[in-house]
Amino acid sequence: MTEQQGFDDALRAIVGDTHAVFDDASMAPFLVDWRGRFTGRARAVVLPASTEEVAAVVPACAAARVPIVPQGGRTGLVLGSVPDAQGDAIVLSLRRLNRIRQVDPFNRTMVVEAGCILQDIQAAALEAGMLFPLSLAAEGSCTIGGNLSTNAGGTAVLRYGNTRELCLGLEVVTAQGAVWDGLRGLRKDNTGYDLRDLFIGAEGTLGIITAAVLKLHPLPKALLTAMVALDSPKSALDLLVLLQERCGASLTGFELMSELCLRLVATHFPELPRPFATPHPQYALVELSSNESSEHAAALLEASIGAALDAGMARDAVLASSTAQSLGLWKVRESISPAQAAAGKNIKHDISLPLSAIPDFIARTDAALQAAFPGCQVVCFGHLGDGNLHYNVAPPEGRGHEDFLAHQEAINRIVHDSVLASKGSISAEHGIGALKREELARVKSPVELDMMRAIKAALDPLGIMNPGKIL
Amino acid sequence: MTEQQGFDDALRAIVGDTHAVFDDASMAPFLVDWRGRFTGRARAVVLPASTEEVAAVVPACAAARVPIVPQGGRTGLVLGSVPDAQGDAIVLSLRRLNRIRQVDPFNRTMVVEAGCILQDIQAAALEAGMLFPLSLAAEGSCTIGGNLSTNAGGTAVLRYGNTRELCLGLEVVTAQGAVWDGLRGLRKDNTGYDLRDLFIGAEGTLGIITAAVLKLHPLPKALLTAMVALDSPKSALDLLVLLQERCGASLTGFELMSELCLRLVATHFPELPRPFATPHPQYALVELSSNESSEHAAALLEASIGAALDAGMARDAVLASSTAQSLGLWKVRESISPAQAAAGKNIKHDISLPLSAIPDFIARTDAALQAAFPGCQVVCFGHLGDGNLHYNVAPPEGRGHEDFLAHQEAINRIVHDSVLASKGSISAEHGIGALKREELARVKSPVELDMMRAIKAALDPLGIMNPGKIL
Repeated sequence: MTEQQGFDDALRAIVGDTHAVFDDASMAPFLVDWRGRFTGRARAVVLPASTEEVAAVVPACAAARVPIVPQGGRTGLVLGSVPDAQGDAIVLSLRRLNRIRQVDPFNRTMVVEAGCILQDIQAAALEAGMLFPLSLAAEGSCTIGGNLSTNAGGTAVLRYGNTRELCLGLEVVTAQGAVWDGLRGLRKDNTGYDLRDLFIGAEGTLGIITAAVLKLHPLPKALLTAMVALDSPKSALDLLVLLQERCGASLTGFELMSELCLRLVATHFPELPRPFATPHPQYALVELSSNESSEHAAALLEASIGAALDAGMARDAVLASSTAQSLGLWKVRESISPAQAAAGKNIKHDISLPLSAIPDFIARTDAALQAAFPGCQVVCFGHLGDGNLHYNVAPPEGRGHEDFLAHQEAINRIVHDSVLASKGSISAEHGIGALKREELARVKSPVELDMMRAIKAALDPLGIMNPGKIL
Repeated sequence: MTEQQGFDDALRAIVGDTHAVFDDASMAPFLVDWRGRFTGRARAVVLPASTEEVAAVVPACAAARVPIVPQGGRTGLVLGSVPDAQGDAIVLSLRRLNRIRQVDPFNRTMVVEAGCILQDIQAAALEAGMLFPLSLAAEGSCTIGGNLSTNAGGTAVLRYGNTRELCLGLEVVTAQGAVWDGLRGLRKDNTGYDLRDLFIGAEGTLGIITAAVLKLHPLPKALLTAMVALDSPKSALDLLVLLQERCGASLTGFELMSELCLRLVATHFPELPRPFATPHPQYALVELSSNESSEHAAALLEASIGAALDAGMARDAVLASSTAQSLGLWKVRESISPAQAAAGKNIKHDISLPLSAIPDFIARTDAALQAAFPGCQVVCFGHLGDGNLHYNVAPPEGRGHEDFLAHQEAINRIVHDSVLASKGSISAEHGIGALKREELARVKSPVELDMMRAIKAALDPLGIMNPGKIL
């Protein structure tokens, strides 16, 4: 028996024959990245069914020095959950760890396993009369383990925070194969280092998250939406400040989009509503939630938007008067990415900035891009309330997209250097993975990189946990 | 020149003669713990004026293998910021790093140095028309560096979170004397390991926090308070759920206290209001904030408390109809600790629990204590909304306090074991310091302790940062 066979048999013995996969055809779906741009290789794909099985797989890999690539719903955008081209790693899929272990209505918490699909968690919370507010485009296929490992953002961060803020405790299998039971459902706990937040966002490079205690919120009684037409990004900031002052935590969404975004949506999705008859430079999609009543939400939204109009902060506004109209406005926002995809390829950036820096950032970066690539089109939209912009650059009208993509590196450089000048982040909500690893090394300070490497070496001294990601 | 003299001169050269203190009389105020229970020794107290000076002191200490005890306002309760009795360490006071570097109203952030007094930060936020919600008894003397290093809690955690949730970025001097500029004012940033949250709550054992970016909130237009009389802790939980469902984030405070607490306050502070003519088993102090108006807050509070009375959840209620009345009710709550102190010494516990476990925990722990120490008096109150109880045990009426304190270890054991059985924490908001270090080693899993030790060794390989604290 070869060493390779011995290792394979060990995996089979742990997870069962049907859940240790070695043939190329069966492995294929686990090896390709979500956008289909990259396909890696692996020596095996294993699908443990329990924390104990995960904890048995890890020491087997450690003993054989086999790298482990933890995988959830494989919806990540930065090549964080697929193996590289070497073929020496195993993919450890958490998909079968998909039980909701507990719902605690008095503690407003839920204990879930890493492989639970986000949408199933939302549904279970709703069934218990509560809200799990994490919401993002991939929610029908992404898993909570992946959301935690990438500290996913989404559309409700303004009010409820990132995934980090929605998690009270974790269960983790360490790089040594020990099980850390950190499944605490506590709002206050000051007993040593915050290991929870170290594993959250570590993209599986420090250990494997197998379960989590999630924080639930009371279910709002009403959700209302408005679209506001604005002069400029600066007006959007003014409007945000006004709404937060008047509405406090009732303001649950604030999205910015430019006229070009709405024009793209109108071109490619003509069936969608057109909120305004005439064009305006910028638009804000505003969402208000009320725990009191829909009357309360409507009165608050009307008064607040009215005040913005009176102050000359807003040019025009459309208030949704029904759930269908609210959904229609959100649909416009959500159709920007698909509309841009339909228009051709573009160069994407998932960036964040201090909110106060956004107007200058947009003006400065637009100008730098125009100087370098005259006529290029910037499609800029995103979660303004969180300082998170999707800043996508497309070729001048009528120019070929493939030609333009050849400038990707130069364009990334212009955008990211402008982000750094504004003290922003080159990855707001997508993480680093393998895709942005080199760029991270360029933009992070040596002090920070050294600390990250020291922590990696301390918790995963053999370097078997998702190598080549982040660091 | 001796080695000792060379080191002392190096300190003087860095911070200036007047800010390097070596004589016992001048050092004395820096060596005694807040409660006056312990006085340590030090070879020097240094007071740098800038991050650069801190960054120069650390390598001097590292080269001479001199331990560093970082110190803020010295208001901690667990011997975390005073040196031990050995006398080989220096105290590094951050008090002179007390500038507010920036207030950014559009980003709703403030950049402050570690030595800023909490109250000064609150005042600066208010002056800019915003709220920095961290609030605790020591706010007139504690520093934000200490608040961050202990992840302080306080009375506004239910709505605004612990200090951790109020910080977006840090500046840290590492154990090697490098300056990590992590002063990011970003709501979303997924670029590697969460070093910020690792330093927060590390009690100065991994590095020295020198500055921070704090998150500000819109200032509520109204704050209203009510005191509700209840049957039991379980009724308090029911009331909390009802209020959160009806008021959402407008519920900013929810404190529990027993009849014994109110009786102690009435005895020792007869001038304070007595909310109810007849006694009730338990009371909840409820605080509501509104960004809309005081009318809105009043209507919401009345309707919600009314619903609780109608449902039989509450026995009686007093709604404050003025700011003075609100303050009076809070004063009752805040006088429990001083009243208990006036009644004599007691054995304190700062614990947290899953909210759902609290009724059982109280019943079970009260019973266990009665069985072991018949007649002992439990003074139980705290931030129920966060699951944080101050569970203090006093001798039977008429019995000597000193005799009773001899049982401290046995009583701690009963309470902490009961906390562990309920999956709670032995330190909710005070930290570990030197005081609870041995107890931490008893109650934490070896897996967690091993990870903590590995991180400590990775970031502070010489072990010079606040040794003997936490680990």
